[in-house]
Amino acid sequence: MTDWQPQEYLRFCDERTRAARDLLSQVPLARADVIYDLGCGPGNSTSLLVERFPGARITGVDNSPAMLAQARRDCPQADYQDADLSQWSPDEQPSLLFSNATFQWVPDHVQVLARLARSLKPGGVMAVQMPDNLREPSHRLIQAVAEEGAWAGKLAKASSARDPLPEPREYYRRLKQLFSRLDIWHTVYNHVLQGPAGIVQWISSTGLRPYLNSLAEDERQHFISAYQARLADAYPAMDDGMVLLRFPRLFIVGVR
Amino acid sequence: MTDWQPQEYLRFCDERTRAARDLLSQVPLARADVIYDLGCGPGNSTSLLVERFPGARITGVDNSPAMLAQARRDCPQADYQDADLSQWSPDEQPSLLFSNATFQWVPDHVQVLARLARSLKPGGVMAVQMPDNLREPSHRLIQAVAEEGAWAGKLAKASSARDPLPEPREYYRRLKQLFSRLDIWHTVYNHVLQGPAGIVQWISSTGLRPYLNSLAEDERQHFISAYQARLADAYPAMDDGMVLLRFPRLFIVGVR
Repeated sequence: MTDWQPQEYLRFCDERTRAARDLLSQVPLARADVIYDLGCGPGNSTSLLVERFPGARITGVDNSPAMLAQARRDCPQADYQDADLSQWSPDEQPSLLFSNATFQWVPDHVQVLARLARSLKPGGVMAVQMPDNLREPSHRLIQAVAEEGAWAGKLAKASSARDPLPEPREYYRRLKQLFSRLDIWHTVYNHVLQGPAGIVQWISSTGLRPYLNSLAEDERQHFISAYQARLADAYPAMDDGMVLLRFPRLFIVGVR
Repeated sequence: MTDWQPQEYLRFCDERTRAARDLLSQVPLARADVIYDLGCGPGNSTSLLVERFPGARITGVDNSPAMLAQARRDCPQADYQDADLSQWSPDEQPSLLFSNATFQWVPDHVQVLARLARSLKPGGVMAVQMPDNLREPSHRLIQAVAEEGAWAGKLAKASSARDPLPEPREYYRRLKQLFSRLDIWHTVYNHVLQGPAGIVQWISSTGLRPYLNSLAEDERQHFISAYQARLADAYPAMDDGMVLLRFPRLFIVGVR
């Protein structure tokens, strides 16, 4: 259970890919020849890039062998590299660096983004999306349950796996001089899910992973039960039994 | 100064039209024959509709003669109607009801949207965007200045021109049964503007209008000065002298 689980991740494929589509729709390029999909996961974002830029050389980069294997199956039109984005550099000057839901896991990612921006061709584009949900009840309650149990010691490291994202102002300050145009915005989606269990399912393949990976099997079940009970208060069901999961995401599009 | 001023409104045309483009990009229709652009303003959103659905019969609806005159000049491919949306009904069953930055001015707009949704063809789409910025400093400071001056009495009516928007949950509750699919989200733009004066310019043609319209000419200048001074604290300039105006907007797309 330590590698990513493509099937679990793809369970909400439509909703998860919506953010990648929204990001791509703001990329102001008619053509692109060299494209990297940074943190390509199971290849759903890579497929969007192949569709939008059919003639381009597209390379997906990820550090999960399971995700890369799935991407090679689902989107064979691209090449793939197994690499850690903290250290990675492109082989060729990119016209587009695209990254959907990845850089929130990369320590000091603003500095990494600045380094990668310098590799772009003149007029090239960097387009990045990251979940910005650590302050949402869905995530604060994971943290609360982690701190309350006998598992608190074990989970201390999981809690620090992601830092809250800086404010838009901070990205602007540190990145503006690298771009001729820089656009930063949030979109707050409301995912319609089947009660608290639907939220657990949604989060278990992403935000919950570092926590569940640190627990033994029987602890995992306890953790999930405790978490789901807390979710029921924070996300009261509507008349039709559904809940709305508020999910903020940060988008950055810069033109070099 | 009581009618809308198309030239002032169009000063930030790119940024203002961005929200209309983002809304249109989420309309899941390959074709549409009857389209209404509700609150078409100077026709910038109507032009987007003409471009996306070239064969459709498109009608812009607005209650401002100045805006309608501008729309007829800038987008002559559409028809136009002068009407109040509280009372208006479509002549023909629409395949698309589109509305960019209008319904925040319509009293009890959720009920109006529900009434209009019932007029859609099966499979038809309602797509609505509204600024949701009454809780932002940019708007709260208008209100603060309005309440503090000798003009407080005069401006009481302006303050009540718009109510804060309901939560997404409330739209879901009141509209869900009318649609097979209902998607509700916010996008929070960060407009890069030239200091507090840039914010005043941005807002003077929209959110400030009801206030400025209620004041005499000399009071207007005082009001704007007081407002701009308060903005300087709330929106500190960045190194390059620019400020980021955080601007949340609510989007609703329902498929009948």
